[in-house]
Amino acid sequence: MRPKPLVVLLTDFGARDPFVGIMKGVILGICPDASLVDLCHEVPAQDVLGASFLLHTAVQAFPAGTIHVTVVDPGVGGARRPILAEIDGQIFVAPDNGLLSYLLASAGRRRVRHLVAQEYWRHPVSTSFHGRDIFAPVAGHLAAGVEPARFGPEIGDPTCLDISRPRVEPAGRIQGTVMWVDGFGNCITNIAQKDLESITLAGRGSIRIHAGGRPLGTLVGHFGEVMPGETGAILGSAGHVELFCNRGNLARQWNLARGDQVLLETAAGR
Amino acid sequence: MRPKPLVVLLTDFGARDPFVGIMKGVILGICPDASLVDLCHEVPAQDVLGASFLLHTAVQAFPAGTIHVTVVDPGVGGARRPILAEIDGQIFVAPDNGLLSYLLASAGRRRVRHLVAQEYWRHPVSTSFHGRDIFAPVAGHLAAGVEPARFGPEIGDPTCLDISRPRVEPAGRIQGTVMWVDGFGNCITNIAQKDLESITLAGRGSIRIHAGGRPLGTLVGHFGEVMPGETGAILGSAGHVELFCNRGNLARQWNLARGDQVLLETAAGR
Amino acid sequence: MRPKPLVVLLTDFGARDPFVGIMKGVILGICPDASLVDLCHEVPAQDVLGASFLLHTAVQAFPAGTIHVTVVDPGVGGARRPILAEIDGQIFVAPDNGLLSYLLASAGRRRVRHLVAQEYWRHPVSTSFHGRDIFAPVAGHLAAGVEPARFGPEIGDPTCLDISRPRVEPAGRIQGTVMWVDGFGNCITNIAQKDLESITLAGRGSIRIHAGGRPLGTLVGHFGEVMPGETGAILGSAGHVELFCNRGNLARQWNLARGDQVLLETAAGR
Repeated sequence: MRPKPLVVLLTDFGARDPFVGIMKGVILGICPDASLVDLCHEVPAQDVLGASFLLHTAVQAFPAGTIHVTVVDPGVGGARRPILAEIDGQIFVAPDNGLLSYLLASAGRRRVRHLVAQEYWRHPVSTSFHGRDIFAPVAGHLAAGVEPARFGPEIGDPTCLDISRPRVEPAGRIQGTVMWVDGFGNCITNIAQKDLESITLAGRGSIRIHAGGRPLGTLVGHFGEVMPGETGAILGSAGHVELFCNRGNLARQWNLARGDQVLLETAAGR
Repeated sequence: MRPKPLVVLLTDFGARDPFVGIMKGVILGICPDASLVDLCHEVPAQDVLGASFLLHTAVQAFPAGTIHVTVVDPGVGGARRPILAEIDGQIFVAPDNGLLSYLLASAGRRRVRHLVAQEYWRHPVSTSFHGRDIFAPVAGHLAAGVEPARFGPEIGDPTCLDISRPRVEPAGRIQGTVMWVDGFGNCITNIAQKDLESITLAGRGSIRIHAGGRPLGTLVGHFGEVMPGETGAILGSAGHVELFCNRGNLARQWNLARGDQVLLETAAGR
Repeated sequence: MRPKPLVVLLTDFGARDPFVGIMKGVILGICPDASLVDLCHEVPAQDVLGASFLLHTAVQAFPAGTIHVTVVDPGVGGARRPILAEIDGQIFVAPDNGLLSYLLASAGRRRVRHLVAQEYWRHPVSTSFHGRDIFAPVAGHLAAGVEPARFGPEIGDPTCLDISRPRVEPAGRIQGTVMWVDGFGNCITNIAQKDLESITLAGRGSIRIHAGGRPLGTLVGHFGEVMPGETGAILGSAGHVELFCNRGNLARQWNLARGDQVLLETAAGR
């Protein structure tokens, strides 16, 4: 017996409109026994790269076979292609606008298809809500067991945006960027565990961090290692360096935002 | 075998309180295998007519047999009746305060019942949370297969509020109203596709739109037909004329809100 | 056949981040047929006692066997224990920081365990997201049928915070506190039905309420008993005295917030 299908939704639709609920109605109309999970709908409107980063840090928590419907789509109704990507055992249905950039950049196995088989779409197709008319019904049919190959031909050129990567200097410095500010005010950077490993011969405790041009503190093991109200950084749950203020809101207190520069240095790098 | 029941919730309860989760607990306590979908919980508090419009634009996406629990209920605890309405193959459980006005106005088949069978309610019934004590348990029992007729007798006089309809002038002008501002700042009007058809002999491209007394642009096929930052209108996904600013937020930039007047005119109407 | 398992989530993670969706992915990866319900994710950040009160007022709506994953966890990564509590037929997975204080204080049957069996955790365990790595997987295994005893040994000393209780004076006065302000601006107090019973020999209609030092009105049966715009109190759906403004927002209009004092008095108490 096929396991119960899991469909995960990521959009910039927010909660104040019925758009996400409408997509779920379409999916369950096609595959009534799907389980639906909201990953996030509060991506800043039309922030394709931010959504791409977020998706990339989240997918590891989902089981093989998960179907992701990912709709941040400022070009809806225009020429951009709708696509389906199989990446390392999970499936992603999305507009081809770079939303899968981070995933594709680090993918092991990947196969991308252009969605052209209109018999799996909802008709008439509107020009402003492909989430309802293309992406949700395709996800529903995938959940119902239709093979990916039925939705369209393979393509070799999915859109990949320029991914901001940290600059790792051999002397023991890393220059990175704030990629996401979470609701607690923690600032998740693009500096990943593997970047860190290249400079940690000197030991973590001695890594010093600067953000917004000011010294922030050191890399510690967990929030409670600094006093309440003090700042520091940890290797966060997404596998990236994350800046924080213990029991406070760092982004608000230090006025940090997405795109801000972050500098890590070891004793050797100073 | 009965298909898996689908219960859809629409309220003005927001996300900061546990009210929606509590209703779901009651539904699943009665019918553990129901699928639950949130349509919207951010309806402006106690905005019965706004919720009615929103529901009306969304129901077409849901499969036959869907059970909607719809609770925007400023008169909770007072004399207004709880009702159950079967409308064109879907079921609606709601207070009888006009929340189903738009649906009832355009209904083909409809049958409305007064909920009186208290054996399907949760006891004791509070005076302030009929969502938990009447509407959710009735939805749960419907999902579990209890026939609508068991919940109460048919009534012929459900409350129907005055629906604001656009004024279509034979000369080729339509005066409408903004009914909903979505999270992107798009303004959905009460001007529907059929209204438009009555004036489009002249062709869509030549339809000019005014909002807030200023010229907004023309009716186009999709957002990308105007430059980023420019404004226009499309026939939106809900089947209504929708005003937008490409890659911007029209409502904020033009200070538009629900209730604002919108004027469409063809060359012939000018 | 085992009934379909129900897992309910309460956190302070908000909706703008993918944290709740990630926890759901972990749960469904372990128990694909679980039903998931969001109780609330908008608890003020790190407000352990507020969340405890809210949970306590909500659990009565959920069926026996419900598994609650409850994560408001400012001390994540530090020394506080992860626990599992069986309380009156429902199960709670939470950090041992007082989050279950209200429930434990009023519990009939209760058994609390220290989660130590790491084979039910997700590895590697991060220091900042035990929701994903400990609480969600434990809930998933519980939902899949693993017995509570398998997760760790019983403990007799779960953390119980000081619960603010109203002061009931024999003369017919109760001094209480606002514990929760809901999205409509209603103020839910810590004055419960049983407290009220001790002073209601004089009859409800004559109970007068003061909040923020001003007379608010009387205790009535439902909102509609006072005119729109006027204030009063009811015995709310959670079984606690709740202050309101009919069709208005009391908290905003009277500038009331959590922690504010409330005074009830009968004719006899004046």
